[in-house]
Amino acid sequence: MLLPELVTPCLVVDLDALEANITAMAGLAARLGVDLRPHAKTHKCLPIAARQLAGGAVGLTVATVAEAEVFAEVCTDLFIAYPLWVDAARGRRLRELSERVRLGVGVDSVAAVEMLAAHRLPGVDVLVEVDSGQHRTGVGPDGAAEVGLAAARAGLSVRGVFTFPGHAYAPGAAAPAGSEEAVALRAAEAALRRVGLDTSVRSGGSTPSAAHTRGGVVTEMRPGVYVFCDAQQVELGVATTDQVALFAVGTVVSRGSDRVVLDCGSKVLGADRAGWAAGFGLVPDAPGPVVALSEHHATVPWPREPPALGTLVPVIPNHVCAAVNLADELLVLRAGALVDRWPVAARGANT
Amino acid sequence: MLLPELVTPCLVVDLDALEANITAMAGLAARLGVDLRPHAKTHKCLPIAARQLAGGAVGLTVATVAEAEVFAEVCTDLFIAYPLWVDAARGRRLRELSERVRLGVGVDSVAAVEMLAAHRLPGVDVLVEVDSGQHRTGVGPDGAAEVGLAAARAGLSVRGVFTFPGHAYAPGAAAPAGSEEAVALRAAEAALRRVGLDTSVRSGGSTPSAAHTRGGVVTEMRPGVYVFCDAQQVELGVATTDQVALFAVGTVVSRGSDRVVLDCGSKVLGADRAGWAAGFGLVPDAPGPVVALSEHHATVPWPREPPALGTLVPVIPNHVCAAVNLADELLVLRAGALVDRWPVAARGANT
Repeated sequence: MLLPELVTPCLVVDLDALEANITAMAGLAARLGVDLRPHAKTHKCLPIAARQLAGGAVGLTVATVAEAEVFAEVCTDLFIAYPLWVDAARGRRLRELSERVRLGVGVDSVAAVEMLAAHRLPGVDVLVEVDSGQHRTGVGPDGAAEVGLAAARAGLSVRGVFTFPGHAYAPGAAAPAGSEEAVALRAAEAALRRVGLDTSVRSGGSTPSAAHTRGGVVTEMRPGVYVFCDAQQVELGVATTDQVALFAVGTVVSRGSDRVVLDCGSKVLGADRAGWAAGFGLVPDAPGPVVALSEHHATVPWPREPPALGTLVPVIPNHVCAAVNLADELLVLRAGALVDRWPVAARGANT
Repeated sequence: MLLPELVTPCLVVDLDALEANITAMAGLAARLGVDLRPHAKTHKCLPIAARQLAGGAVGLTVATVAEAEVFAEVCTDLFIAYPLWVDAARGRRLRELSERVRLGVGVDSVAAVEMLAAHRLPGVDVLVEVDSGQHRTGVGPDGAAEVGLAAARAGLSVRGVFTFPGHAYAPGAAAPAGSEEAVALRAAEAALRRVGLDTSVRSGGSTPSAAHTRGGVVTEMRPGVYVFCDAQQVELGVATTDQVALFAVGTVVSRGSDRVVLDCGSKVLGADRAGWAAGFGLVPDAPGPVVALSEHHATVPWPREPPALGTLVPVIPNHVCAAVNLADELLVLRAGALVDRWPVAARGANT
């Protein structure tokens, strides 16, 4: 990777790799016969959303009302894939949003359905969240029918079901998670049909499980990380380092005979580390990963000829969504030249 | 904890607890006979810095030039406790800063000293970083003399030595780390004296090791986390939950018979988790900690009578510095009433 002069620590985007990733996922979705609704929480950047939409995405997924408010600037079809608790303030914001764009929200309880319905938001679609094995949020098939029916009776427009197969995030787990996603969506679809509800949307997907999506059962997928990839995807075998499109860049600020310390710490990389991860981030130029991380220090063992003080070193974050959410802007590189700066428009948009 | 109506997820400050923590650490420093130079990377807020200075702190510690630029607004004596690599851009920024405030910077290599000296910054003091056992940055006593001498010969104003006993962050490690800090600072002091350098500043300290600081050997301490405390300090036995002055607040958005999911995920709490930590954050009202964390979900087991959907639940972040750096503002509460909003002025100030 060619690096221009940069003020470190910073995040850089390899534009060629980003565009290739956007094209590849759109191609996969087309081959599978499913709609692609990328999750924008990964990149939080309007220029990337615009590229995904131009590349064939049917709309965007977001995690929060605040993210929806940001992406409504470039996208007219947004799904908030989250079991929202719609209090008065959120109700007002959803109403304003629904007057600007087509909007869907998630629900996984009768109580949340009742809160939502109280705001009388005729333009808002509802998808019922189903648990496909991550055991985080979502209900089983019977629960889906109960929640869906409550929503319909409260006057909400039920359009189907969704799930997040987050248990795909473990070695060897992507293919089984893809199967379980299909099983859960099919069961929930059947349960909703039995009570006479619309099931035209069956939405799933994550980056690791994307290739294992069952077209037909699943109508739409919502991968996010694929635009950049990250160390987790590389370690899971989902991506090669050539596909990684976002790097933190640190400067060697301290140096021993067999290691260096870079200035891209956890306030740049994020501190995410799965139990199966090799370290706190991969360093393509080094023999191994970041082995210790503090807020402003990333320690990298480098047994032979560690780079000189002042050297710029790219690091692949473990979890790119977390790294991006720490930055105010991404520096965009093409062939080693800085060609743009993209504001992280939805950084911190958690509410 | 009384909570007013809040838009969640958010971070709230218990102002009474904050003020008590500021007073207590100032009292400890006075009893130990050391100067207190709190690390502002924890709170990144000007109103908190002002309270620390009013409470007797001699100045502030920061981690980056960008943080120094922010805190120069309220503080005239700043130490950047970091082995800076001072390229042309940083050199210009340090010059501007040094014209506004008294400024010190860290060095741990001859090469960094030469870079710094090239910018001819007569007003900038230099402290040599010493490794007291964390094995992150810093040199041994001989290295300290070599780096210090190089600095003096290059025309820099060497004022002494500093260390960060970060290895205090483990169960039972605080007292030994306090001893090792004193041993390392004393050895470095002797080495610098032998080559005729000023050693009037011997700076150390962290929140866990603060009570074990050796006054006399150590002249100044730089704890940061103490203003808020966090789950790490509670689990290390350094603080009680009564001393915790910052909480994330989440809403129950999903609920099973024996657990709840809150909307304060890793994009609010941060993902820091030491090997010895019970979970991803402590939940004072629940029987146990956050056991699973994704970007917008915190899963909390709650075997008996989990709170209803929509309930606000306070969570103590594992590492408060990381949580604060994710937020744009802190909501300030006194006796359950919202009395102020403090911008996180130095959020993301990593360069």
